[in-house]
Amino acid sequence: MVKNFYLSCDPYMGILMRAPTPSTLALLDAFIPGKPIAGIGVSQVIDSDDPSFTKGDMIWGIVNWEEYSTINPAGIFKIDVNVNVPLSYYTGILGMIGLTAYAGFYEICSPKEGETVFVSAASGAVGQLVGQFAKLMGCYVVGSAGSKQKVDLLLNKFGYDEAFNYKEEPDLDSALKRCFPKGIDIYFENVGGKMLDAVLLNMKPYGRIAVCGMISQYHLETRDRLQNLPDIIFKKIRMQGFAVYDFIDRFPKFLEFVIPYIKEEKLTYVEDIVEGLENGPAALVGLLHGQNVGKQVLKVASE
Amino acid sequence: MVKNFYLSCDPYMGILMRAPTPSTLALLDAFIPGKPIAGIGVSQVIDSDDPSFTKGDMIWGIVNWEEYSTINPAGIFKIDVNVNVPLSYYTGILGMIGLTAYAGFYEICSPKEGETVFVSAASGAVGQLVGQFAKLMGCYVVGSAGSKQKVDLLLNKFGYDEAFNYKEEPDLDSALKRCFPKGIDIYFENVGGKMLDAVLLNMKPYGRIAVCGMISQYHLETRDRLQNLPDIIFKKIRMQGFAVYDFIDRFPKFLEFVIPYIKEEKLTYVEDIVEGLENGPAALVGLLHGQNVGKQVLKVASE
Repeated sequence: MVKNFYLSCDPYMGILMRAPTPSTLALLDAFIPGKPIAGIGVSQVIDSDDPSFTKGDMIWGIVNWEEYSTINPAGIFKIDVNVNVPLSYYTGILGMIGLTAYAGFYEICSPKEGETVFVSAASGAVGQLVGQFAKLMGCYVVGSAGSKQKVDLLLNKFGYDEAFNYKEEPDLDSALKRCFPKGIDIYFENVGGKMLDAVLLNMKPYGRIAVCGMISQYHLETRDRLQNLPDIIFKKIRMQGFAVYDFIDRFPKFLEFVIPYIKEEKLTYVEDIVEGLENGPAALVGLLHGQNVGKQVLKVASE
Repeated sequence: MVKNFYLSCDPYMGILMRAPTPSTLALLDAFIPGKPIAGIGVSQVIDSDDPSFTKGDMIWGIVNWEEYSTINPAGIFKIDVNVNVPLSYYTGILGMIGLTAYAGFYEICSPKEGETVFVSAASGAVGQLVGQFAKLMGCYVVGSAGSKQKVDLLLNKFGYDEAFNYKEEPDLDSALKRCFPKGIDIYFENVGGKMLDAVLLNMKPYGRIAVCGMISQYHLETRDRLQNLPDIIFKKIRMQGFAVYDFIDRFPKFLEFVIPYIKEEKLTYVEDIVEGLENGPAALVGLLHGQNVGKQVLKVASE
């Protein structure tokens, strides 16, 4: 039994609220109406009949959205409190989100120094890390986001070379051509739809698209029409969907990689923390509408 | 100077007839109105100032659509007439088409014995070879084509396990579910549009899509709307465009691989040969409408 401190709000949870389809069955189990929803949480062990966990241990993993959860210890990670970072980071940069950005960028995008990288939803939980990883590698990095405040974060906090507010661009193709006069080598895809269509037009030959999410499309009855899919052939593009669960074995290596950068303040992480379980539904709905600024976290109890 | 015997009719030539766009510029040079179009041909050297070619040599490579062409010897392959196969094969199975099927299947699809493979335009120049390569590897192979005659070829000549006429299927998703009750591991994409959309719905997790062509989409003002692109994430699909020109270094190895299979009659190749240069335009237009049965070849002169 654990007491929950932080709960993670993530876009995939919106998919799990819909009736499962044969396609989404390949993901996680859909939520069951009338039962608590589940997601990544940071919690403290209250009681345990598993000898690997002791009362007082801090852990992270899948818990229910409630104050106390009885959980299966399989797939639960113990937190090393000596690392001395905000505990909420284990819902994000030090957990599945961080590993998503790490595996997605370094393994799926096959990046090289000097390449041009575009990230959509670029100030989001994953996007802000991908942009910073790409800068650390010596890439030219551009991000898109949905408000002036987010664009300011991209430029002034995360070190993006250029950024634009997609809601204020009359033409996404022109915005991309302005930022990438010579084209895009790598697209880290979080949104799908019209943005993907404009990106395809601006990809360079042999470009790579890591498909992490398509949040603009999940909840549309009729999805955006793309005109530029044949660019996948013309430019020999590799477009690859991935899920973090296939990279769990890299997690220790990832922590070794990322913790020093956090300590040395070479990586920053912006969270949007809402307090109170009762505010969870609004926080999750807000995330699905892009109202969060940075990683959306729900604080259920004080440490 | 060469005398042309056979000219190859290929779908990409339709793209080169349109005004070039930044996307198609990554391909070959667009055709110039008022000048002869160019393509793969099988020809005989009439005269040469290049010491590597002698009068009488049989060659294949890019020539113009005309009776005699003056060509640049760069990128021209000499034909070993001792191999003793129909010369027209060098427009197809023993040339760029064969290498396309070989590289696309063995390198882009990452196939394994026992996997399920779907090929669209499955009796076409490339498709008929992909299906046979997949059978040689011990895969379960299904093809789609646009007429009863082609479906018969798939089943009775190329050894496909199942086949369907997409024009007679009221619902492509149902057709695919009937042929692949457990889903598709590998899709060799030649057509795009609605077929791709139905395939995405039926791909297995970790499926691979080799994008060789999207012939149904090139000449549409408004391209088909796809509903199922998010399946790329849900199922962690890799979708990869490719072009044969990146695999030229495998050509000698490919010939070593393929010629014994032809000699032993373990591979078959169906050609649709139209005679007379004056019938070339109709043959090419027919190809773009799927009227050919097998590899479309234009015979300009008798050997």
